[in-house]
Amino acid sequence: MPDSATDSRPHLTFDSGNPAELRRAIRSGAYTGYTNGLAPGYVQVSPVIMAKEYAADFALFCQRNPKPMPLIAVSDVGSPHIPQIAGDLDVRTDVGVYQIYRNGVITQTVNDIRDLWQDDFVTFIIGCSFSFEFALMDAGVPLRHIEEGNVSPMYRTSIECDPCGPFSSELAVSMRFFKPADAIRAIQITGRYPAFHGAPVHMGKPEMIGIDPANSYGGHGLKVGRDDEIPLFWACGAVAQFTMERAKLPIAITHSKAWMLVTDLKIRDFALP
Amino acid sequence: MPDSATDSRPHLTFDSGNPAELRRAIRSGAYTGYTNGLAPGYVQVSPVIMAKEYAADFALFCQRNPKPMPLIAVSDVGSPHIPQIAGDLDVRTDVGVYQIYRNGVITQTVNDIRDLWQDDFVTFIIGCSFSFEFALMDAGVPLRHIEEGNVSPMYRTSIECDPCGPFSSELAVSMRFFKPADAIRAIQITGRYPAFHGAPVHMGKPEMIGIDPANSYGGHGLKVGRDDEIPLFWACGAVAQFTMERAKLPIAITHSKAWMLVTDLKIRDFALP
Repeated sequence: MPDSATDSRPHLTFDSGNPAELRRAIRSGAYTGYTNGLAPGYVQVSPVIMAKEYAADFALFCQRNPKPMPLIAVSDVGSPHIPQIAGDLDVRTDVGVYQIYRNGVITQTVNDIRDLWQDDFVTFIIGCSFSFEFALMDAGVPLRHIEEGNVSPMYRTSIECDPCGPFSSELAVSMRFFKPADAIRAIQITGRYPAFHGAPVHMGKPEMIGIDPANSYGGHGLKVGRDDEIPLFWACGAVAQFTMERAKLPIAITHSKAWMLVTDLKIRDFALP
Repeated sequence: MPDSATDSRPHLTFDSGNPAELRRAIRSGAYTGYTNGLAPGYVQVSPVIMAKEYAADFALFCQRNPKPMPLIAVSDVGSPHIPQIAGDLDVRTDVGVYQIYRNGVITQTVNDIRDLWQDDFVTFIIGCSFSFEFALMDAGVPLRHIEEGNVSPMYRTSIECDPCGPFSSELAVSMRFFKPADAIRAIQITGRYPAFHGAPVHMGKPEMIGIDPANSYGGHGLKVGRDDEIPLFWACGAVAQFTMERAKLPIAITHSKAWMLVTDLKIRDFALP
């Protein structure tokens, strides 16, 4: 199982610009890397899987916290398919690495959850900042972490989300560095994509939101800025993972780190005018 | 003639929310203070007056530098009236303090230019950030300099504008402090108003654009931020004044500091969707 902070992606043997081919390569194990930067123009998402018993509270938790938890789709109960986001998608096999939470603790990381599937599982599909990264690149805004073959780091802030039922969490953020003029453009552009967390929630001054940049959630990502750069912080769907630590459901399943679910949805269809 | 950095505006004897009354008070000398924060919801502008001989080059200079020099209207040759921005307006009397440039040097500051008027004068009307300040306040974004009875300071940056004919200048900026989340909102909101300089051109790190915050153009304004604030820098129409220093026209007339021309135009009519 890959677990490096960088991903140089040499010698891809499939068409990584095609989301269906990318899912197939992930499903078969032919591709085991992070998904950021692949299938340009297509929406990447976080799947969050739990028993139906908890689904109403989790849906309301998403509604109350739209910046970290923009809800793009929800599966039917028991179905591993979510045709609203991709016809051939199987949420049991199409994520590179899954985290299995049992009673609030990650007990396994696996790359296939068919043997763990339950008939009462519901999958929530949460927007992800990897999608707006394409919009930024399209607009000519440089993303240094991608140029360096890295990902954006995630952090646990000191800000509390609005709770619902068993679900509560610190706000999670993802951090990216920009030169000031590019940071201004990045704020304007991402503000057009509320489904992918929208505009940043914070910039500069990580200590104001309780962050030590060196100490990222999961340990990965480009964490050191340059003198002429400013960090922007976007609300992040890692809140889903954080909720599981506190909610202590018997079982819940999320993706791990930067192994996202790739959809057939087009990013451009989510832009506000 | 008033020349203080703060303006407490005690005991206004006219309706300062009505732009026509405010112009009348300025015209008569009943009001001699800065205009920022008065006539809420109405557009304030910078008038730039020069002989027709130079008007084509100046118009093109504005076209080439739309961030500092958004051109809202131009008068007919020789007319002190600009009915496009206010029916009763007289550009010879309706500005609190004028600067008279002769051969690139301010030779006088006056509050009436009727005796200097020439039949070949053309007035350019340039958008001003005082207009977007109302949009920010409407959106609930705090403007500390206004709360403290002050104005935003202006600076001469190390960035050169695109020149045209005799007109060239360093980019001027105005600076305002915000808490990070408010700074993000301020970027989004002002981006909707290109006629009033649009989104900032820079943020944080004043040294990157050659600025020492303590050394503002004109010496006035709130120049010291707090630990939890970030400075945003917007392109500023003070470029018009800077061009006059270099172009050395026989005569040119601008407003001084924060004594702007108040129009009957409504700010809301300038918002992009």
